[in-house]
Amino acid sequence: MSTRRRVSATRLRLHAALAITCGLALLRLAATADAQPADPLPSWNDGPAKKAITEFVARVTTESEPEFVPVPRRIATFDNDGTLWSEQPIYFQFAFAMDRVRALAPKHPEWKSKQPFKGVLEGDMKAVAAAGEKGLVEMLAATHAGMTTEEFNRIVTDWLAQARHPRFQRPYTELVYQPMLELLAYLRANGFKTFIVSGGGVEFMRAFAERVYGIPPEQVVGSTGEAKYELRGGQPVLVKLPKVNHVDDGPGKPVGINRFIGRRPVLAFGNSDGDLQMLQWTAAGSGPRFAGLVRHTDAAREWAYDRQSHVGRLDKALDEANARGWTVVDMKTDWKRVFPFE
Amino acid sequence: MSTRRRVSATRLRLHAALAITCGLALLRLAATADAQPADPLPSWNDGPAKKAITEFVARVTTESEPEFVPVPRRIATFDNDGTLWSEQPIYFQFAFAMDRVRALAPKHPEWKSKQPFKGVLEGDMKAVAAAGEKGLVEMLAATHAGMTTEEFNRIVTDWLAQARHPRFQRPYTELVYQPMLELLAYLRANGFKTFIVSGGGVEFMRAFAERVYGIPPEQVVGSTGEAKYELRGGQPVLVKLPKVNHVDDGPGKPVGINRFIGRRPVLAFGNSDGDLQMLQWTAAGSGPRFAGLVRHTDAAREWAYDRQSHVGRLDKALDEANARGWTVVDMKTDWKRVFPFE
Repeated sequence: MSTRRRVSATRLRLHAALAITCGLALLRLAATADAQPADPLPSWNDGPAKKAITEFVARVTTESEPEFVPVPRRIATFDNDGTLWSEQPIYFQFAFAMDRVRALAPKHPEWKSKQPFKGVLEGDMKAVAAAGEKGLVEMLAATHAGMTTEEFNRIVTDWLAQARHPRFQRPYTELVYQPMLELLAYLRANGFKTFIVSGGGVEFMRAFAERVYGIPPEQVVGSTGEAKYELRGGQPVLVKLPKVNHVDDGPGKPVGINRFIGRRPVLAFGNSDGDLQMLQWTAAGSGPRFAGLVRHTDAAREWAYDRQSHVGRLDKALDEANARGWTVVDMKTDWKRVFPFE
Repeated sequence: MSTRRRVSATRLRLHAALAITCGLALLRLAATADAQPADPLPSWNDGPAKKAITEFVARVTTESEPEFVPVPRRIATFDNDGTLWSEQPIYFQFAFAMDRVRALAPKHPEWKSKQPFKGVLEGDMKAVAAAGEKGLVEMLAATHAGMTTEEFNRIVTDWLAQARHPRFQRPYTELVYQPMLELLAYLRANGFKTFIVSGGGVEFMRAFAERVYGIPPEQVVGSTGEAKYELRGGQPVLVKLPKVNHVDDGPGKPVGINRFIGRRPVLAFGNSDGDLQMLQWTAAGSGPRFAGLVRHTDAAREWAYDRQSHVGRLDKALDEANARGWTVVDMKTDWKRVFPFE
């Protein structure tokens, strides 16, 4: 027997063994086929919200159903702040910006007498708020521009590792909603591509979205700034400029979805009036569509706020959800568990 | 025997049959396992370009190799005009814009005396060129804005179905390069996510990229315009505005890659100086990187042009490719076949 023949014979035996193993595996599968499948959403209480989600997914993923949606069109978009993680007492990216102002203050003596920087350094939140949108833009420019994209990524990563949320004394990335993590995984297991569509800065979110949500950078849509391509000592860098390119909030969300994704979502989840247009845009598509809102109703485990809140106000979108029969998730009654650490 | 038991027994028999089928399939697989695998790039001649590509892919996809790249980081970006399809005698999107000017002319009597519209209507390409960038922007505004995104998609789709390329008398979408289609499929089969990164309008390209290249809308990066969200009779629409948001060409390509993808490609392909910065940005990443250029050297089957061309000039990028050892694909010698219809 030649070496080549011997190898072939061994390979054939190997494949025969594989065939038997495969057969046994299928028999075992058959034996357990009657067992109940594990609940893919264990942190959701049984109720109308969970039912609406699972029934929708069953409808659009069953080929014999009239509302079947082919895999490439299974686009699901999620707001981030207040929908995938908390947003109180202030947006976490704003907490980052304030920490950066404190860290950079020694290099900016002029900030001691200039709002909103002065307010940040003195802990005077009223003064910060009084500086309004103009002040906010100045603060974002001072903390989110003037460095390369790689430097910014490092700064955010370092901050996320050491900063602690004032109420929970945990890293901000632990304040993600366990039921929404399960929902993201459940959708992906059913052929959906999951996207973030958020007013937050795209580069801020990309620093943790893959690790925390399983959402890769190319599936994060957010507010964007201008950048400049430069060669530094022969090495190309992208320098972040203090100029806004796109505000991905409110009517900017459908614009961002169209620009980045180019396909209308079949499912979208938000939690505030800033998500209203994304939900309208999603719901108005032809065929089956799912529009959902997370409603913050649980002051004990998280926060309770909606119509009057400054951060994440849910007012018009709640009216429209009620009028159109969108799914409103009541955090207190629909979620068995809020955070993974509970 | 109860009905339930009978069903279970039937199911068990079914699964046993499946197990046997599965086993037979594996045995058949074993019998053919020694056969040479089919060439994934049959339209590429054996030569340095094909070798560079296949060796690179082998290196970054073999787990035991020091240069192994995990699947999520396997980002490949391709220019479109001149890299995936032809760009002569004018960019195909420009041919579209001129056809639109002709179609819309009855509604715009003022165009008879206004450049560059007059030039288009009279077939005076010198006058069109003389109107310069300002004229081009006006023409793009007149033909690419003022309608909803869905209307625009329909207009482009209809145009692609009926327009014919002046030299080949075929739909423009047939002037795609067979070797590049094979390369895209080969990369995807090896775990790469393939993106277009082009100076072309993102919505123009999305009208055919999925059907023609297998690249879904969310993986098309291009030049973008502003859009406005509106409710029309309660129905949300996105109206395209005559205002540029991003020019995805030259230094705009790394900016676009960063904004849309958020990850540096490990492989990039272009064909002109407009791709230089994308190739620099790709090549400068840590770990294994592949930078490639398609060089148009075949006047008989396609076109021959590089350093002096107005469309798709390849000059500085060719010098840099030679200096840095990037892969230059010579269309004439490296491609067995250029178009699928050959």
